[in-house]
Amino acid sequence: MGVIVQKFGGSSVADVDRMKTVARRVVAEVDRGHQVVVTVSAMGKTTDNLLGLVAQVTDRPDPREVDMLLSSGEQISISILAMVLHAMGRKAISMTGPQVGIITDEAHRKARIREINTDRLRALLAEGYIVIAAGFQGSTVDGQITTLGRGGSDTTAVALAAALEADRCDIYTDVDGVYTTDPRVVAEARKLEFITYEEMLELASLGAKVLHGRAVELANNFNVPLQVLSTFSGERGTMVVKEYVNMEDIVVSGVAYNRQETKISILGIPDEPGMAARLFSMLGHANVGVDMIIQNVGSEGRNDISFTVLKDEFNAASDTAERFVKETGAEAIQSDEGIGKVSIVGVGMKSHSGVAATMFAALAKENINIQMISTSEIKISVVIKLDDVDRAVQAIHGEFELQNPPGKLGGLSGSPPVRSMSAKLR
Amino acid sequence: MGVIVQKFGGSSVADVDRMKTVARRVVAEVDRGHQVVVTVSAMGKTTDNLLGLVAQVTDRPDPREVDMLLSSGEQISISILAMVLHAMGRKAISMTGPQVGIITDEAHRKARIREINTDRLRALLAEGYIVIAAGFQGSTVDGQITTLGRGGSDTTAVALAAALEADRCDIYTDVDGVYTTDPRVVAEARKLEFITYEEMLELASLGAKVLHGRAVELANNFNVPLQVLSTFSGERGTMVVKEYVNMEDIVVSGVAYNRQETKISILGIPDEPGMAARLFSMLGHANVGVDMIIQNVGSEGRNDISFTVLKDEFNAASDTAERFVKETGAEAIQSDEGIGKVSIVGVGMKSHSGVAATMFAALAKENINIQMISTSEIKISVVIKLDDVDRAVQAIHGEFELQNPPGKLGGLSGSPPVRSMSAKLR
Repeated sequence: MGVIVQKFGGSSVADVDRMKTVARRVVAEVDRGHQVVVTVSAMGKTTDNLLGLVAQVTDRPDPREVDMLLSSGEQISISILAMVLHAMGRKAISMTGPQVGIITDEAHRKARIREINTDRLRALLAEGYIVIAAGFQGSTVDGQITTLGRGGSDTTAVALAAALEADRCDIYTDVDGVYTTDPRVVAEARKLEFITYEEMLELASLGAKVLHGRAVELANNFNVPLQVLSTFSGERGTMVVKEYVNMEDIVVSGVAYNRQETKISILGIPDEPGMAARLFSMLGHANVGVDMIIQNVGSEGRNDISFTVLKDEFNAASDTAERFVKETGAEAIQSDEGIGKVSIVGVGMKSHSGVAATMFAALAKENINIQMISTSEIKISVVIKLDDVDRAVQAIHGEFELQNPPGKLGGLSGSPPVRSMSAKLR
Repeated sequence: MGVIVQKFGGSSVADVDRMKTVARRVVAEVDRGHQVVVTVSAMGKTTDNLLGLVAQVTDRPDPREVDMLLSSGEQISISILAMVLHAMGRKAISMTGPQVGIITDEAHRKARIREINTDRLRALLAEGYIVIAAGFQGSTVDGQITTLGRGGSDTTAVALAAALEADRCDIYTDVDGVYTTDPRVVAEARKLEFITYEEMLELASLGAKVLHGRAVELANNFNVPLQVLSTFSGERGTMVVKEYVNMEDIVVSGVAYNRQETKISILGIPDEPGMAARLFSMLGHANVGVDMIIQNVGSEGRNDISFTVLKDEFNAASDTAERFVKETGAEAIQSDEGIGKVSIVGVGMKSHSGVAATMFAALAKENINIQMISTSEIKISVVIKLDDVDRAVQAIHGEFELQNPPGKLGGLSGSPPVRSMSAKLR
C-alpha cells in the first residue's frame, strides 16, 4: 500500500458533475488500497475571471495581491471536492497550499517550492483521510500566500509525490495520454505507452500542452513515475519514466508542431564580436522570449541571424530588431508571420544516424521547403510555411511509421517495451 | 492620530466601481491623519453563489469545508480593494483572517473570537500601510480556517477596533444611519444622531438589519464607539455609544417592526410543572428559534402558551407543537401566519411611566387590535394583524412625535443631547 498523488486540471473540476467523475477516479485508487493525495486547480475559468477583475482596476497589479486573489480559486475547488467525496461516504479533507506545508520563496506569481513539510499530510493519510491539496499555491516562511505561476498545479502534484515518495503521480487531463502526434492532424496517431522525461520535456517546450515542463523536470530530478491520462475515459494513459527497456530502439517517439511562432531575420549584421549577445540582451530587456536561433555566415564580413518568437510578442520583437539595426548598421530585417515549426523527438536518435536525413527526405517528397533547422540531442526542428504544417506532420509521421507499435518500428528488432516494463510500473 | 476601523458590507464592494467609492472613504480618513484598518465582506452575492455550489453537492455539508469555501470570498474582495488603493497611489496590504491573527474557537460556521494578536497589524500600521482585513473569518490555534457566522464581518470590525483600542469603528452600510423608524413606512422618520448600545441591541433583535446584535454586544463590552453611516452619501451617520447626556429625556428612540414572524398558540395545556420547559426544549431540538413567549393562565387548571417564530421555521414549529399536544393532552393549536410585530425602543422608558399606555392608545385610536404584548426594560412589543403594521408604525411614530429633534420631545425639557456629546465623540 503506497501513496498515489492525483492531479486534476481546471476543466476536470469545472462543475459539480465533473467533480463527481473526478471523485470516482479518486475512490477507485483508494479502493485499490492506496493512500491518495489529490491536487486540483481552480474550477474552469475561475482564474481567468479573477484576472478579469484585476484588469478592471490596473494593468500593473501588486503580485502579492494577485496571489492573495488567485489562491481563492483553489480554495473553492478543494472544498467542493471534499464535500463531493463526503457525499460518497468517504473521509476527505481539503488543505490550502499553506496548510499542506508547501513553503516557497518570495517570488510572488512565480514562486519556487523550497520545501514541503509532510508531517501533517502523512498523519492525515495514516488516519485514513483522502487529502485534497490546493494546487498552484504555497506560502513563504512568514505566511504570505504565493502562487507558483505557469504549470503550478502540475508542479504541486509532482512535488508532493516526491516529498511523499509516492508510487506514482497521475496527471489527469482532457486527453488520454501522449500521442505520436496530434490525432487531429494524423488520424493514425498512436498513444504512447511510455515516454522518457527528456522526450516529454522536449514535447512540453514544443507546445504540447499535456504536461508542464517544469513539472517534468521536477519528476526527472526526483525520479517520480508520472502518468498522463484522461479524467473522462478511465483508461490507462502514458507513463513518463526515466528510461525503459529497449528504448534506444525507438528512434522517434513523436512529431510535434507549433503554429504560434513567427520568424524575424536580421540580415547583414557587421561581423564583430558581441553582436548576437547585444541583440538577444535587447530582446530580453523587452521581455521577448526567443525560441529558435540560427546564425548563418553571410558574405563580405557580414552575418545573418534568424530567430522565432511567439505571435503575441512579435510586435515587441520587431520594434527591438529595428532599433538593433539602426544602432549597429545592419542591413535589413525580414519578418514572416506565416510560419510553423515541426519537430521530431526521440531519445533513440542519439545513437541512430540518418534520422535527420529521413525527416528531410519526407519533407522533400512533399515538396515542402525548409526555412530553418535546429537540433538538440533528442530533437530536430524545422521551420516551414504555416500552410505546410499539416502535410509535413503527416508525411513525417508516416515516414517513421509511428502508427505502428515500437517493436516493429523501422524494421529495428527488439521486444515490445511495454511488457518488459510492467514490473517496474508497480 | 488614532486608529479608525472601517467596515464595508458586501453591497458596498459588489463591483470595482463601488470599491472605488469605498477607497475614497478610506483615503479620506487616512488624509485626516488616522491609521486605518478596513474590514470588508465578500463581494455582492459571492457567498450566496458559493452556497449555491454546495447545494448542488449536499444539504449537509461538513462545516469545516464550508468555511474553507466561504473564506475564499473575502480573499477576493480584500485583494481587489488593495489593488484599487494601490492604483490611487496608496500603501495598502490585504490580510486574511488567519494572517491578521484572529484566533477563534473550533466551532466552524459560527466560531467565536478568542483573541487577536495585533503585533503584525500594529507593525504594518506603523509602517504606513492601510491594512485591509478579511471580515467574517479567522483560524483555530492549529491553523484551521473558521468563519464567524451571521454578523461576522461587523464582529470582526468591532473586535479589531477593541483590540487596537481604536478611536472609532465605522460601520458603512447602504443606509445613512439609524432612523426613528423605517422611512419607507413613515416619511417623517428622522435620523438619530445618537443611540445607546442597549437600544441598538433591541433594534437589532427586532430585525433592523443595520448592525448585527453580536457586534453591538462586543462594542458594548469593550466600549468601542460605533458609527453607522452610508458608504455612498459620505454624510455623518448615527453614533452608537454607552450613554449620552440627557439621554433619559429621550423616552422613545425609535419604532421597529418585523413582518417575518408567525404566531402559534397552544391552548389548554395541563397546568403541571415543567410543561413550558418541555415545549421549548422540544422546539430547541427542532432548531426552531422562538422570539416572543407569552403564557396566559387559562381556566380549569389549564394554560395557554403563545409564541412567535420566523416564517421559515413555521413548519418545523407547527409539527413540534402538534407532537407536544399529542404527548401532553393539551387541547388545541391555533396558528396565524398573518401577523406582524411592532416595537418601541428607548432607554428613557425605564424611568418614565405611561409609555406603554401612550403606545396602546395610539393603536386604539387607529382601531388596531393587539394580540400579544411583551416588554423588556427598554422595549415594548405588540403583535398585531400583518395588514395593520404600517398604520401602527405611523400612528406610534406620530404619537411620540419622533419626527421632532429630541430636545422638544413630548414636551419634556432638556438640552439637545447632540451638542453636549460632541466633545465625547473624538
